[in-house]
Amino acid sequence: MYKEVNGGVCAPKGFKAAGIHCGVKGDGNTAKKDLALIVSDTECAAAGTFTTNKVKAAPVYLSMKNVADGRAKAIVCNSGNANACAPEGDENALKMCEETAKLLGTEPEKVLVASTGVIGHTLNIGAILKGLPQTAEKLSYDGSADAAGAIMTTDTVMKQVSVEVELSGKPVRIGGIAKGSGMIHPNMGTMLSFLTTDAAIEAPLLQKLLKDCVRVTFNRISVDGDTSTNDTCLILANGMAENPVLQDGSVGCEAFRETLEYVCRTLAVRMAKDGEGATKLITCTVTGAADENKAEVIAKSVIRSPLVKTAMFGSDANWGRVLCAMGYSGEDFDPMKVDVGFSSRAGSIDVCTGGRGLEFDEDQALKVLSEDEVVIDITMREGDAAVTAWGCDLTYDYVKINGDYRT
Amino acid sequence: MYKEVNGGVCAPKGFKAAGIHCGVKGDGNTAKKDLALIVSDTECAAAGTFTTNKVKAAPVYLSMKNVADGRAKAIVCNSGNANACAPEGDENALKMCEETAKLLGTEPEKVLVASTGVIGHTLNIGAILKGLPQTAEKLSYDGSADAAGAIMTTDTVMKQVSVEVELSGKPVRIGGIAKGSGMIHPNMGTMLSFLTTDAAIEAPLLQKLLKDCVRVTFNRISVDGDTSTNDTCLILANGMAENPVLQDGSVGCEAFRETLEYVCRTLAVRMAKDGEGATKLITCTVTGAADENKAEVIAKSVIRSPLVKTAMFGSDANWGRVLCAMGYSGEDFDPMKVDVGFSSRAGSIDVCTGGRGLEFDEDQALKVLSEDEVVIDITMREGDAAVTAWGCDLTYDYVKINGDYRT
Repeated sequence: MYKEVNGGVCAPKGFKAAGIHCGVKGDGNTAKKDLALIVSDTECAAAGTFTTNKVKAAPVYLSMKNVADGRAKAIVCNSGNANACAPEGDENALKMCEETAKLLGTEPEKVLVASTGVIGHTLNIGAILKGLPQTAEKLSYDGSADAAGAIMTTDTVMKQVSVEVELSGKPVRIGGIAKGSGMIHPNMGTMLSFLTTDAAIEAPLLQKLLKDCVRVTFNRISVDGDTSTNDTCLILANGMAENPVLQDGSVGCEAFRETLEYVCRTLAVRMAKDGEGATKLITCTVTGAADENKAEVIAKSVIRSPLVKTAMFGSDANWGRVLCAMGYSGEDFDPMKVDVGFSSRAGSIDVCTGGRGLEFDEDQALKVLSEDEVVIDITMREGDAAVTAWGCDLTYDYVKINGDYRT
Repeated sequence: MYKEVNGGVCAPKGFKAAGIHCGVKGDGNTAKKDLALIVSDTECAAAGTFTTNKVKAAPVYLSMKNVADGRAKAIVCNSGNANACAPEGDENALKMCEETAKLLGTEPEKVLVASTGVIGHTLNIGAILKGLPQTAEKLSYDGSADAAGAIMTTDTVMKQVSVEVELSGKPVRIGGIAKGSGMIHPNMGTMLSFLTTDAAIEAPLLQKLLKDCVRVTFNRISVDGDTSTNDTCLILANGMAENPVLQDGSVGCEAFRETLEYVCRTLAVRMAKDGEGATKLITCTVTGAADENKAEVIAKSVIRSPLVKTAMFGSDANWGRVLCAMGYSGEDFDPMKVDVGFSSRAGSIDVCTGGRGLEFDEDQALKVLSEDEVVIDITMREGDAAVTAWGCDLTYDYVKINGDYRT
């Protein structure tokens, strides 16, 4: 149906991007990009989902306001400072939109803004205002990687993806970049993810599809259980693919939704795999659950558990911790119906049936769990609902990174 | 009002205890005690609180049943195996009660049972049945430390406390032992805590007071957010202090409740401080909250946050993470009214007022946070409710201990 193509957020027609070092991340270290810009040649339908944290960063409030009318043309983002709980936060977020709008010849309300980094420090707005003209000058149709690099904090891997799908005979593309790493336990959005498409689609439907996709992708990953103050997922659709405008419930709309979900899931899984200090991607599949909500709560409780995460780090088939994490999830279920297994590239192994331990080959378990992508398979035998959630292991490096992140 | 005395669970009149190595913890290592017994000379009023985890260990179900009539005479406990999700779990828990009852000349229903250790492995009941006669022989009026040692798993410090309070002119004592360390996020009970008293009190009032005290002590600590399958808090009251039987609402009852709360709090705080891998006790005080429930949810969200815990490990005054954890707690509040400070033996420092960062002396902050007992002070300016919760930092050693605990 859809196929991967190159180009990230610049893969869809009419999108330019750029990323530079302006100085938020500290003087001198010009290798570390910290200011990103994504711009459409024409005004776009726009949609967004945002953190549910009661403590929201200033740019989150401003983007929520600016996206409310479903129209936007650009996204500006800095890394190195979250502009959350910071003096003059609202003013500085507004200045970022105003300066960007001036450079692009549009209104400040057409610019969406995001920030990521340390909480509580005053944003170095001088560096950003000085860097913005240079960023605007560098905008190009192959600038996605620069923008993806400029939104990274403790990420070790750049995250971008782009795909093409045919809608009513027209090739339509969706591209995305994201950053994750720490303080990742999204609820309604995720740390930062910016998506572009050249599909013709109106904003209300775009918002609905984005929300649907975020619910089953970004909202099903967890690195450390900490829901950030800055989670933001934005999408711009400029219509330059010239497909007939997508109608809710149509075949084309479903194809677009599936493609968007693929883009979101790809970025979300990469975010989980590149969790702070992680050595492994942990996928938890819950099948046979009574309903989807129950399956989701249980799957997320398992991938969030520090004891499950450390066991995975140690390649230890300690399935009792999996059952324990299911049990304290808050959902009701019959433990005596639960089966647990582990699988990976190296094979699979059943370790628990009907809530009771099975004799199993420890050497085979070690082999399965030593891979860098491991699946925890849970079968509940209570119904037909199934959910997948993604997390990572908890390692020495997570402690190291977060024991001295700020200073 | 009350004063600390020596003796642990044997401080109250008429209680004997013992602890031995029987072999659950593995052959040869006779230095590691793994079987504990606490016995009253006379039958007691008894009460208990237990884990709310949907996955409960077999001994939890059996103790819930045996304590239901409010009468008991003894507590038997093994460490090294949780007897949770294990084949023949129910039968083996019952065998522990039956053999103990036989040795003590009482009924199996008068024996409460608990287990702690790895989940999902068959209990070595043979070793326990063989070790019980020896344990019964060793019972003595100064055996509390042996029992406290025999319930430890990854604990590094033995936890016992005992106090005396005068009720109607009679000295009444309460003693307790506990184990904690990992999988600690109690809800209704805690990993394991056994309390004794020679107070004369009937079981329904004892149950009510225990529940009250557990709510504000054990239920307000967290090591890793993992609510165990085995949490159990039991109390035996044999009446040998010969005080007039305590009446609900009386002055004596309130003095007893305060003393019991002190015992529970002391054990709970020691459990938090000795959390797996911990180098620091983290106390979070929330004052000025709209109500106690809100204050409790927020305080527990802060001490549970991996990012707060790693910052404390790194002595980093990263208060933004404190606000972030408050914000995703699920409780509603105005971030713009929140003040945050840190304090310890080395002094105190204000870092945030009205939701915005203050300029502060980083050297002084480092000095305050480098102590082994640190307080996070949160003021909400929304009401009069106040709550204290206790946790610990997240360290390399937590990862080490749990990366290879089972194997």
